This record gives sequence, structure tokens and C-alpha cells, in this order.
Amino acid sequence: MTFPVVGMVGGGQLARMTHEAGIPLGIRFKLLSDTPQDSAAQVVHDVVIGDYRDLETLRAFARGCDVMTFDHEHVPTEHLRALESDGIPVRPGPDALVHAQDKGAMRARLDAIGVPCPRHRIVSDPQDVAAFAAEGDGFPVVLKTVRGGYDGKGVWVVGSAEEAAEPFRAGVPVLAEEKVDFVRELAANVVRSPHGQAVAYPVVESQQVNGVCDTVIAPAPDLADELALKAEEMALTIAKEIGVVGHLAVELFQTRDGRLLVNELAMRPHNSGHWTQDGAITSQFANHVRAILDLPLGDPRPRAKWTVMVNVLGGDYPDMYSAYLHCMARDPQLKIHMYGKDVKPGRKVGHVNTYGDDLDDVLERARHAAGYLRGTITE
Amino acid sequence: MTFPVVGMVGGGQLARMTHEAGIPLGIRFKLLSDTPQDSAAQVVHDVVIGDYRDLETLRAFARGCDVMTFDHEHVPTEHLRALESDGIPVRPGPDALVHAQDKGAMRARLDAIGVPCPRHRIVSDPQDVAAFAAEGDGFPVVLKTVRGGYDGKGVWVVGSAEEAAEPFRAGVPVLAEEKVDFVRELAANVVRSPHGQAVAYPVVESQQVNGVCDTVIAPAPDLADELALKAEEMALTIAKEIGVVGHLAVELFQTRDGRLLVNELAMRPHNSGHWTQDGAITSQFANHVRAILDLPLGDPRPRAKWTVMVNVLGGDYPDMYSAYLHCMARDPQLKIHMYGKDVKPGRKVGHVNTYGDDLDDVLERARHAAGYLRGTITE
Repeated sequence: MTFPVVGMVGGGQLARMTHEAGIPLGIRFKLLSDTPQDSAAQVVHDVVIGDYRDLETLRAFARGCDVMTFDHEHVPTEHLRALESDGIPVRPGPDALVHAQDKGAMRARLDAIGVPCPRHRIVSDPQDVAAFAAEGDGFPVVLKTVRGGYDGKGVWVVGSAEEAAEPFRAGVPVLAEEKVDFVRELAANVVRSPHGQAVAYPVVESQQVNGVCDTVIAPAPDLADELALKAEEMALTIAKEIGVVGHLAVELFQTRDGRLLVNELAMRPHNSGHWTQDGAITSQFANHVRAILDLPLGDPRPRAKWTVMVNVLGGDYPDMYSAYLHCMARDPQLKIHMYGKDVKPGRKVGHVNTYGDDLDDVLERARHAAGYLRGTITE
Repeated sequence: MTFPVVGMVGGGQLARMTHEAGIPLGIRFKLLSDTPQDSAAQVVHDVVIGDYRDLETLRAFARGCDVMTFDHEHVPTEHLRALESDGIPVRPGPDALVHAQDKGAMRARLDAIGVPCPRHRIVSDPQDVAAFAAEGDGFPVVLKTVRGGYDGKGVWVVGSAEEAAEPFRAGVPVLAEEKVDFVRELAANVVRSPHGQAVAYPVVESQQVNGVCDTVIAPAPDLADELALKAEEMALTIAKEIGVVGHLAVELFQTRDGRLLVNELAMRPHNSGHWTQDGAITSQFANHVRAILDLPLGDPRPRAKWTVMVNVLGGDYPDMYSAYLHCMARDPQLKIHMYGKDVKPGRKVGHVNTYGDDLDDVLERARHAAGYLRGTITE
């Protein structure tokens, strides 16, 4: 048997769902997880408990892995370089991944390759924020620490220099960006292999609530073909220029005046691609595995006219399992994806997918199920 | 968290694929496996290595399981009864499962509930086989040991009393059956919950090679609606009358004169249902899990006009992984399902699924991929 061993760093739900997608390929899957209770650690056979911030832990884990990939973007770039020097294929590699780890590096690189972004620059203090505002249309301004943020954390919208003190307290460089007047957020998901093969999923609409992804509609409704094509091209260009291997999610703003601006990059399977599990011929997880193994990629096209994903957040009601009875009986086509996580208010603990020909119906079914699981809908 | 623990006895590919289907439901999965190398033991976190024939091993395994189910039908009926007496839900239960374990009990029960079977009776010795032949159209006669056979093992087709000695050597009762003049084999797959809810998958055509399932076409081509309905009704009736919980596969002969006769029963996800992983709204594995947990069942309808499954058997060529390059590049829609098993000639080591609108194309793609993986097609 020459089936490879994939080493996954991080035990979250992305690792869990990547393992699920890897089982049919017959590959071996090894997990480095913070705790035995982590989402993926519950369902993977070969689990090592350890700290991904420790290089020797990573090195010991890497022995016996044919390739390493990641559930998150928090492994220090210098550790990734050390693993590469040891001869372990790290996918995506550190030279690519740094653009998802460091928003400053990301913006500089996108500028260099000519991909449109919100107006931005690194700012040094609150007064510099005021100067940045004055260079454009004034406040509000978006401030982001260049490292460590996700799901709205590490991001501030400030209305004055006085409000801009907090982002600087962490001692991490701060990026200022114009607050874009967008009509909606889109995401362009692509997958690229070391070989250079790449596939693009249909561009989706991503609806956020309190800075956290809530609903994804695939494909994005009423998106002009030329904008959809432009978004796919932007994502494919970024993947190629940055040398991404694996899944790349490009979060985009669609502006009121019809432009597309890059908001964020993620180099791993992404929440905006969860719909592909039930809605595409090949899921983002399966294609990520194929990409990091340099196997030919699977067809990314949709299987249904519309697919909707709604995240299930924790509510006040910890017993989601008993909600299955109602949800499954109400909608025999509903696809539930739970992560094995304890319920905490606001925590992403799962998602649901629905698909069909009538978008209103597909949306209603997904929203009802997610709300019922969370406990905000009780009938 | 009140998510249940499912205990699976047996580490084969059915357990592997049931685990895969259970991950999205957030349930806990515990495996009793013969060896750590077993197909499912490679991909499940919580694995106990032990002998399912030993009652105390089963009892220790059952502690902490909310429900127990099976990868195979070999657990002794008396052990299942003991577990039930201990208060462990065993699904399917021993009173149902005995009909998949013992072909004599199966035939007697199907006769009692009026389900058509090939002419049959228990025979005591080769002379009795000759008498059985004389009672009908003569030789050839099919002989089966009532317990322990699968995939053509424990089955003999004999042309004379002289040829009939071997089946009696094992000391297991022997069932004689007429050799049915069939035009093809069909399978009706249904799933039933303790609640009594049941769903029927489309009836499929199952093509055997040397007594082993080779190709499954869903739905069975050119099957008259009334015959398809009759097959589904037969399977639903058997499930209800026998009290099956979980998946039931009813293998059928379609005779030259337009009748349907039951060949075999299996009470677990079945090779004739593997197409549902990629071809149905809810797979047989997901519905088996839902059934044993008494959750509402998922929609069994097909997602494509045609879905074809072809088994991948071991050939002379042990390195199937390197064949992925060709297979995936040739057909980006191909679905490969490998079981993590070492290649041995004739052993089922995986299967492929294809789907689409054109049956000839779908068949060609599946057969090419399975042949290429096996090594019998090299271009």
C-alpha cells in the first residue's frame, strides 16, 4: 500500500470535515490537536495531543506524514519554514500562508499584483488613523490587527481618533482600511494543486451577523455573469500569484458602484464553502485533500440550482440533539453537520445545508432548521 | 451534550462508511474490531480490539453504548439476546437478525408471510437432494449451508446427487433451492426505524461476476413500474413483518416469466446500496444511523437520473493509489471509495460511483475506473 499519510494541524471542525472527506480516498489521516475533546479529535483514529506553537511538537508530529496541512492559520510562519527545511511538504507553504496570517503582507501583495482592495495602509497610532481618514472620505475607519483576528475579533470600526486607542494596545501592527460602502459580501472559493491545476466554485453570497458568517447562498443571486467571472478570475489570480496549494477563500465586497474589493483571504476550507458538501459535485474538503496530495482536482460545479448554508450557533439551549426529531421530520432533505462541540452562546457548533430549485423555499428550510437547533425558533 | 454513542460491531468497510456518514450527525461512534488494521479501525477514534464471538467482550464493549449495530451478521444470536436482556438496544434485534443469519429461518418466515421464494426445503443428505430435484424440474439444484455463507461462499450448484456431498461436510443444515431461471438480479433496499417509519430506495439492478456483486445500476433499467412497486412492497413487508430496524437489503431474482423471488436478505447497509452515497439524497449509511437512533429517516430519492456503482476488486497490481492520477484526471466527476484494505486478488477493496443522464456514459466511466484501479485496464 502506498496510500499517503496526511498530517492535519488543528482539531477544529475544518479538520473534522476534511477527515470525513478523506475517508473515501483511502488515505491515512493524522491529527495534531490541542485537546482530546476537540471537534476532529473525536472522530479521527490517529490523534496526537500537543501544542502547534512548539516546533519540536510539530517536528515529532511531522515524522511519518507525507504532507502537512492546517485547520487554522495560527502556526508560526518560522515553524512552517523549519518543517519545509526538514523536507516535509507543507501545504499551503509558508510563503503563501503568510498572506492569510498577516493582513499587512496580504494587502501589500494584492497591491503588487493589481488586485483591488479597500483603500488601506499600516497606521502607527490614533493620530495616524485621523490622518488616514483625512486622506480619504473621513471616518468611520476600519482598524485590524495584522495578525490573530478572525470572525470579527481583531477588527474595530472607529468613528474618531479618540476611539482608535484600543487596537494599538496589543503591540501588533495595525492596518487601517476605508469602510467600504458595499451592497453585499461575496466569496470566491478556488482550489489549486502544486501542479498548477485550479478549479473555481461558483461565487456565493455570504451574509454576516455581528461579524460572523450566518448564511451562504450558492450561487450568489442576481450576480451579473461578468462580475461572477471577475470574482473567479481574481481568486484564481491570487492563488497562482501567491502560490496557494489547497483551498483559497477570497472574501469580497460588492460595492454600490459595481466594483469588487478583496476583504480577507483564507487558505483552508472555509465557511463560505460548506455548502459544497451537499451542493457541489466535489466538496471543498475533498478538493483540498486532492490538492495537497497533488491529485487531479474534482469537478466544482453545483449539483442543485440553489444551495443554502446556515450556521448553527450556540444559544441558551444546550440540547441540540433533541431538536433533530423536529428538524428531520419537518424536512427529510435537510443536511445537518454538527461539530461535536459543547454549546456556548454564539459559538459555531454546526451548520445545515439545503438545496433545491426554489430559493425562497431553500432559504426558509435552512433558516428554520438552524434556528430550531439553536432554540430561537420553537415551532 | 446528549448526543448518543453508537456501538458498531465489526471493523469492515460497512462500519467505515457508516462512521463517515455519522460524523455530520455529531454522534459518538465506538467500534469493536478484530484487529487494528481493519478497514474501519483505521478511521474511527474509539476502537476496542476484541472477538465478537465472546459474550464478555461484547458486554464490556456495550457499556457506554446507547445502541449497538453491526457491520456483519456473524454475532451469535444468543449473545444478541443476552445483550438485549442486559438492557442494550440491539438494532437490528436478534429476532429480526436471525433471518439474515440463518437461511432456513429466513425461508420459513418468508413462506409464512407469503413472500415468493424459489422452491426450497432443508435436505438431509445427497439422496435427499436427488429427491428434492425430482420433486421439481430436476437438477441442477442450489445448495446452501444455512449459516456462514456470503459472496458466493457456502453456496454450491450441483448437477447430480454425487456432486452434493461437500455441503454436508460442515455439519451445518443444508438448504436446497431450485436454480431459478432469472433474467437478472434486482435489489430492493429499505430502511425502517423502531418507530415503524420506513423508506424505500429505488430498486436497482445488481450484476454478479463469479457470485460476487460487480455492478449496480440505479434505478434498474427498463423495470416496469408495477414490478418496481412490487419489489419495494415486498421489502417493506419483510421489514415490517420481521421487525427489522435499520437497513434491509432484499436481493431478488427477476424471472423470465416476470415474477420476483427473494434470493437473500441482509440487515445492514449493503453493497447494492453503495450507489446512494453519491446518488441519493440520503445515503443508506446515513439512514441506517438515523434508523437505529430512531430519528426520522432521510429522503431516499435519487439525485441523478442514473447512478452506477462498480466494485473495485483486488488484482495482481497492489498499488491502487498511483492509479488515482489517471482516474481522477480522466473523470473529474468520479467518486472513489476505498476501504483501506490490502490488495488481494478478488478481494473487495473499494468501489466507484458515477452518475449522470446518459446510462451508457455513466456505465463506461464506472467500469473504466474500476478496471483501471484493479489493473485490468491500462489505458
